[in-house]
Parts: sequence; structure tokens; C-alpha cells
Amino acid sequence: MSKEHANTPADPRDLPLAVTMGDPAGIGLDIILLAWNQRNTRRLPPFALLADIEALGERARQLNLNIALRDISDILQAAETFKSALPVIHQPLATKCRPGAPDTKNAPAILRSIETATQLVAHGQASAIVTNPIAKSVLYAAGFDHPGHTEYLAHLSKLHYPDEPATPVMMLACDELRVVPATIHIPLRNVPTALTSELIEATVRITADALKTRFGIDNPRIALTGLNPHAGENGTLGSEENDTIIPAIEKLRDEGLNVTGPHPADTMFHEAARQSYDAAVAMYHDQALIPIKTLAFDRGVNTTLGLPFVRTSPDHGTAFDIAGKGSASPESLIASLRLAAQMASPHQSARKP
Amino acid sequence: MSKEHANTPADPRDLPLAVTMGDPAGIGLDIILLAWNQRNTRRLPPFALLADIEALGERARQLNLNIALRDISDILQAAETFKSALPVIHQPLATKCRPGAPDTKNAPAILRSIETATQLVAHGQASAIVTNPIAKSVLYAAGFDHPGHTEYLAHLSKLHYPDEPATPVMMLACDELRVVPATIHIPLRNVPTALTSELIEATVRITADALKTRFGIDNPRIALTGLNPHAGENGTLGSEENDTIIPAIEKLRDEGLNVTGPHPADTMFHEAARQSYDAAVAMYHDQALIPIKTLAFDRGVNTTLGLPFVRTSPDHGTAFDIAGKGSASPESLIASLRLAAQMASPHQSARKP
Repeated sequence: MSKEHANTPADPRDLPLAVTMGDPAGIGLDIILLAWNQRNTRRLPPFALLADIEALGERARQLNLNIALRDISDILQAAETFKSALPVIHQPLATKCRPGAPDTKNAPAILRSIETATQLVAHGQASAIVTNPIAKSVLYAAGFDHPGHTEYLAHLSKLHYPDEPATPVMMLACDELRVVPATIHIPLRNVPTALTSELIEATVRITADALKTRFGIDNPRIALTGLNPHAGENGTLGSEENDTIIPAIEKLRDEGLNVTGPHPADTMFHEAARQSYDAAVAMYHDQALIPIKTLAFDRGVNTTLGLPFVRTSPDHGTAFDIAGKGSASPESLIASLRLAAQMASPHQSARKP
Repeated sequence: MSKEHANTPADPRDLPLAVTMGDPAGIGLDIILLAWNQRNTRRLPPFALLADIEALGERARQLNLNIALRDISDILQAAETFKSALPVIHQPLATKCRPGAPDTKNAPAILRSIETATQLVAHGQASAIVTNPIAKSVLYAAGFDHPGHTEYLAHLSKLHYPDEPATPVMMLACDELRVVPATIHIPLRNVPTALTSELIEATVRITADALKTRFGIDNPRIALTGLNPHAGENGTLGSEENDTIIPAIEKLRDEGLNVTGPHPADTMFHEAARQSYDAAVAMYHDQALIPIKTLAFDRGVNTTLGLPFVRTSPDHGTAFDIAGKGSASPESLIASLRLAAQMASPHQSARKP
């Protein structure tokens, strides 16, 4: 381990990102190697990877990538190390990792990587967390009992920040659009019932707060979709706009928030319409994800708002079928790294997404 | 009226399009004038407008457009006239038209324009119908009792083509995408119930037939969305994929149709995904209209499949607020005119949208 910079404490603005390994049998290791390789041309912020350094080295060989890896014990060395080697905080796997063949024996190491990242950010040693994709089924088989990655981070957040609220809200972001679904992974049939004024209000408040504190936008403009075609067309195509969405908008406006809608969802996402808001709040999964994935399929970033720290994640899964094969794209991870650093240090206004 | 071409019967391929006036207080008259003005640069097919020629002349003056109008009694003169003047088949209004102020007294003329267009195409004198936007409320106040424009055309179709099926299916089309919603103007809450295997099958069959006969695509590839997030994720996020959509796909495949899905709707509309199908069939309004309006807000065309004739329409409303003011865009109408002519004469393959 290099000690060459032991006397050069990092500037706080140079705090690295903590990047989790994700499922090592997936493409997480592939894309972090590819991303580090582009650190200069893509002007990436420094990061440290919490992963098994031997598995990482083997993946580099599988991908024919000649990349220097350096095992650092102190994350404060990450920023300087990052220039010449990919800094790794070693998190040993229980069993050898084969790309495309996830193994529940490695579930504890996958979870430990996430726990360590949370600790580092809670202790002020990392600026933000970037998570690589996990496969819930692999973790469930090992006894994991949280609904998903995000809920697990909210759980860890409560351990480290007992006095701070942790209500995770998913935002998808790309250069062209920021969009937040008010309901997410539920059957479409259940959306009208799950959609309450309280849920919409809480979602918008957390979104507005994050736009201010994480994106540096004063008085952020938030546009809400309707639930029904044509936003219900004055009640003739559905009642939820009048019963649920409009009362929420009125309450939020009374609180001083700059909220518009409900707008017909189909006409909210073209280029001219996007200029009128800083974030869109949609009522359900596909209403939010169709526009962003249509516009920016491999550049979208998933960021969790409502936590005491910044967390971003590439907007794709483990892609076991292509792990180790050289065809995985690091674009969404690169966008996640860049956005995490920006959100952790939002000193410049980002009025335009 | 000019008789200069009375001895030159039109080549059948030169049959004009029949364009309806729409609500004359809306932007229909604006955009048809603007479109004709671009007939050469945009290589527009010849058309005849079924409208009040005096109202049209007044609209041209309001827009400071110096456009020659010619009242033709015989639509066979349209193609030759079109080169030097906008051919009009006069349909007198009952009362003077003021832009932005629709008048129910003009409802009979609005409907007569649609009826005349249908007659012309049924009699082989027009190649297809392009409809300008109407306001249903104006027509309802005058006693109109059809759910909408499309249903009225289906009704007229049955009068003129008593032996042919008329099951209208809405397709939205632009250069990048063709998409068909299986359910349309119903509350989102009612979609899961309205969505039956039979409805999906009928929609796909009509879409496949139109892709063959109107778009010249042999063995068209049709991709279906799921209803739920992630297309139900094997039943964990909703049951309609397993209960309704997959059985329909299996039936359609047994019939020899090239159908795939159900695909997660959010990953179906980016550029690479669009290369894998000739048309997408979506389960509900916003799932179909969000992607096309995000990609091509003012270039989308609404075309009605399942009728014995070709009908296209700009994908916007009457826009009463900007009628006569010079700010209406003719782009969607121009795309509608071009698509109608292509669909009426699909001699060239159009594998790529």
C-alpha cells in the first residue's frame, strides 16, 4: 500500500465517492473498470471501490483491460491514488466469483460493501454513495429481508443518522429531464388507490428540497402529471385529478412551492415542455420511466432523494448475461458518478437539467 | 372556375386527398393555407379542401397570406389546380366564422365536410381523407351523437361500404415510431378491466393488416408492451401479462403473426429498441402517447386503421386560442398529408418508419 501521500490530507472538496461492488457476478465490476479507464477524458470525480480486489483483477484480465488496481486501507488516499490506479477498499468475497453465475455465498460481502459505503459517508470520509446493481433474489436467498436496494439504504441511514428523516424518493435524471414517480413498483391496477394526496405532497416536498439542496436550484419549478388520459379532461376521463392531485397541488402552493399541473402526461416531455420545469413528478412507474428511457436510454441515473446523504446508481440491472464479456456500457455508471459528485457539492446553480 | 384541364382526366395515382375543414373557428384553416404554401418545398401530394371559400379567403387575409384559392366543382380538377391555387370544394357555412369563437350554427357544415370527404373517397374520386380538428362540444350542442370524430367516420364508412368491416383503431405515427394504444380514452382505473385478450387480438390483427396493405410491409413485426411496471416481472408486479396479454400473443402467433412481448414499456421506445419492430401496440393512452409526443411533438400523425379507406389527422386539437393569429404550426398537418398519400399508394416498402 502506498504511503506517499500520508502527509497530504485531502481537501474536503476532494472527498472521493464510495462505489459499492454490486453483485460481482454482474456487470458492476466491468463498468467500474471501464469508467476508471475514462477518468480523464470524461473528467470523472475520484472514487474508491468497495470490492474484492482479486475478483476485480480477474475481471480486468477477462476484459483484456490493463488497469492498475491499488488496495488502500484509508479512503483519504483515494483521491490521489485515483490519478494513477483504481483505488480499492478490499471487501473479500466468500467464494470465487464467476461472471454470470451469482452465488448466494457472496451475499454477505455484497451487503457489507453497501454498509461500508454508508459508514464512510456518515463519517465524512466519502462525499456520496454510488451503488452498482444487485440482484434481490440472490440476497433474499441469503436471508436479506428488505424490499430492495433503496429500502436497505434507508435502513442503514437510520442506524447512522438516527435523528434525520429517511423517506426515500426515486428520481431518474439525465441531461434532458429529471422525473420522480410518486408510486413505483406496484401493479398498475393498484395505482389509483395507492395514489393519495399525502403521498403526492410528501413526494413533491422531498423533490423540492433536493432540488434546492442537492441541485442548487432556488425556488424549483415542479410540474405534476395527471393520472388519466388528458389529465382527466375536467373529470370526464377520471376523477383522481379532482379528488387527489389538485388538492395536493393547492396545499403545496399554499406552502409556497412552485408547483404546476396536473398536466396531460403525453405533452409534458417534449423539448419545449421540459423547459418549463426543473423536475416532473409522475403518478406511476411507466409514466416517469418511458420518457426518460426514450430520451436517454443508457445515460439515465437513478438517484435516491430524501436520505441524509447522496446516493446515485446506474439505471440498469446486473445484466448477468453479459458480465465479463466486454459488451457492457459504462455510460449510466459514468453519469451516476458525475451526478453524485455534483449533488454532493451543488455550489453552482443547475437550473437547467 | 377554370376549365383548362377539362380534357385531361387525372391519372388515378394523381387522385387528390380530400381535406375536411374541421371547426372553422379553430386553426384548421390556418394550417391548410400554410401547408399549401409549402407544397413545392415539402413535396406535398395534391389535395382539395372541403370548406367555405369565403371564410378561407378571410383567414388568408387575417394571416397576411397572399394565396390563390380556386372554387372547383369537380374534384378531378384538384391535382392540376393544386399547382397554382388551393383547390376548394365550397361547403358554405351557416354563419360568418370568427377565429376563436366556435358557433354551433356551423356544426352542420362541419359535418357535411366530413360526409363529403367520405363520399369522394368511396366514389374513387379522392385517394384518402385528411381531417382537420373538430371540437366535439360544438357538435354535441348541435345534436351530434357520436363519441368522436373517428366513430363518426366509422358510421359513415358503414353507409358507403355496407359489406366491409369498420373497426377503427388509432395509430400514432412519426418518422421514428408507429404506436397503437389498445385502450384509449378511458380512466386509467378502468384500463385493467377493459383490456381483454380479444381486444388485444383484434387490435393487433388490424394493425398487422394495415402495416401490410397501407405501409407495404411484408410480415410486419409488432411488439406489445406489458401493462405493469417491468411487464409484471413474472407476475410479481401484476397479473394481466400472464392472464390477458401472453395468451393473446400466443393466439396471434398461432395465426402466423410476428408478435413479440409483453415488453417492459419503459425500455421499448429508445432508438435501438425501435429498430426491432414496425409498430408497437401499447395497453393504454399515455403508454402510447408519451413516447411519440416526447420524440415528435409537432410531427405526429393520427391515422385511423380498420376502415375501408385511409384517414389521417394532425395530432392536435382546434387550438381556438391561436386561430387566425399566425402562430399555428402546420407541421402535423403536413405530416398527415404526406402519410395519407403514402398509405393510399403503398407501392414502396416502408419497413423503416
